[in-house]
Amino acid sequence: MTNFRITILGSGSAMPTTLHNPPSQLIELNNKLFMIDCGEGTQLQMRKFKARMSKLHSVFISHLHGDHIFGLPGLLSTLSLLGRTSDLNIYAHKEIDFLINPFLTYMGKHITFKINVIPLNPESEEILFENQSIKISSFPLKHRIDTNGFLFEEKKSASHIIRDMIDYHNIPFNLIHGIKRGEDYITPDGEVIKNELLTIPGTPSKKYAYCSDTAYAPEIVHYIKKADLLYHEATFAESESKRAEETYHSTAGQAAQIAKLAEVKKLVIGHYSSRYYELGVLLKEAILIFPETELASEGKIFEL
Amino acid sequence: MTNFRITILGSGSAMPTTLHNPPSQLIELNNKLFMIDCGEGTQLQMRKFKARMSKLHSVFISHLHGDHIFGLPGLLSTLSLLGRTSDLNIYAHKEIDFLINPFLTYMGKHITFKINVIPLNPESEEILFENQSIKISSFPLKHRIDTNGFLFEEKKSASHIIRDMIDYHNIPFNLIHGIKRGEDYITPDGEVIKNELLTIPGTPSKKYAYCSDTAYAPEIVHYIKKADLLYHEATFAESESKRAEETYHSTAGQAAQIAKLAEVKKLVIGHYSSRYYELGVLLKEAILIFPETELASEGKIFEL
Repeated sequence: MTNFRITILGSGSAMPTTLHNPPSQLIELNNKLFMIDCGEGTQLQMRKFKARMSKLHSVFISHLHGDHIFGLPGLLSTLSLLGRTSDLNIYAHKEIDFLINPFLTYMGKHITFKINVIPLNPESEEILFENQSIKISSFPLKHRIDTNGFLFEEKKSASHIIRDMIDYHNIPFNLIHGIKRGEDYITPDGEVIKNELLTIPGTPSKKYAYCSDTAYAPEIVHYIKKADLLYHEATFAESESKRAEETYHSTAGQAAQIAKLAEVKKLVIGHYSSRYYELGVLLKEAILIFPETELASEGKIFEL
Repeated sequence: MTNFRITILGSGSAMPTTLHNPPSQLIELNNKLFMIDCGEGTQLQMRKFKARMSKLHSVFISHLHGDHIFGLPGLLSTLSLLGRTSDLNIYAHKEIDFLINPFLTYMGKHITFKINVIPLNPESEEILFENQSIKISSFPLKHRIDTNGFLFEEKKSASHIIRDMIDYHNIPFNLIHGIKRGEDYITPDGEVIKNELLTIPGTPSKKYAYCSDTAYAPEIVHYIKKADLLYHEATFAESESKRAEETYHSTAGQAAQIAKLAEVKKLVIGHYSSRYYELGVLLKEAILIFPETELASEGKIFEL
């Protein structure tokens, strides 16, 4: 059973098609459920793919284009009908207030929980949420309006002690915490017992990076370096590279180039323009540059 | 080929399920396409059922509960992306301005067409649209907030003249219009030739009535009298009649009772509460009172 799972709810772009819903993803991490973007129909997709609405911890909105936010009113309304009482944090650019407040005013007392809108910083990297085991941060992308990417990461877990070795050296209990964190043990005689003889490494931490919508922007590479999974938009094929440039979107090849530069383990592309009925062309162009590429599609799950 | 066709896009209610989308219907009448209500995902349903977005003439919103309006921003946005230039009339209660204006302001110059919001009269019957061949009117329903039903009707077409009889009596051309409208012909000798000898009746006009959301309200019967098709909400089964009363909704039996009182030809029920996975109970309760009942479902088409 994995602890880190991404479910694609929508892999389309501004104009929905019969094949692709507007953008939304669920990130399940350490038994918390996070949402990135919330295009129209997101709550319907959650139903379809049996996501547990009651588990939703918070929502991260990359930018305020309609295809990334038009599902919010319906989602908030349904959470209310389900009787949610715990606060919901929505991380989004501050202008969202202007769009969402009339709705909240109109819903008034029918909203059963508090919504906290937490403004994103469109200029620089920022930690949005952190606890003992996970960290979520945002970083700027390059689009027509303020847009942020998101990084979900597990924190490196402490090493596991080798019980037999601890007993053998008769190490006092009060030093165990330090040893788990990497310290050596110095015996009463002054002998140094190297940490690697006393422990086995903890579970390696994993990282998921989300980059949509964005023009080709090598300056984001350091934020997403060595991610286990990178979702990068690939709105267009190479034949539409001029259109990609004009609209601050990426081609599949550019997405793959970012994946390559960032040395990620795997790339998932999505945010397909509605002109692509057949996505083979996008996949092919990406694979030529970065072989470990997959296509996003509605309902697809990526386990880290 | 029929000229009057209703397509159900959503037959659910406030809480969408995997089976039912929030309310929306398309009315195709005399080559014009009208929409009633626009719940979340309506534009996706239009795609799915291959409705021609470019043909959309105007939108009628019964009331301002979220499940009837949350699809509007996405629809308007997509119509813009498709380059619509002709005005779009939205018939809705006046408070819709408050909800829709921030969105329009935000979209700004990206909206390629003019939107006219035309306020509904929640107190009495009113003609909303009329031309030579069709008439669309609204009438008050009985819900928790101002809510209107809609009546779509063909105008009775003029009678067809019987050419042989016109020739036989040598009737002057300038009298033909009156005869088509039902006048008798008086010969130069003063003989009265009855209209029914000169004409065959025109195509009978058809009527479609939409009633959702509403409590049981026999006072609406005269608005929808003898409709060819009545859509009436049936949110609950008889076992939930108390809940229906409290929430100003109808049971399936009450919908059937309205159909019976109004002497309509056929009843379609919908707006099912999400608690009904199996709709047989609703259909059964309605049929006992009004046998000509059908269940609405996504994609179902009713031809008049």
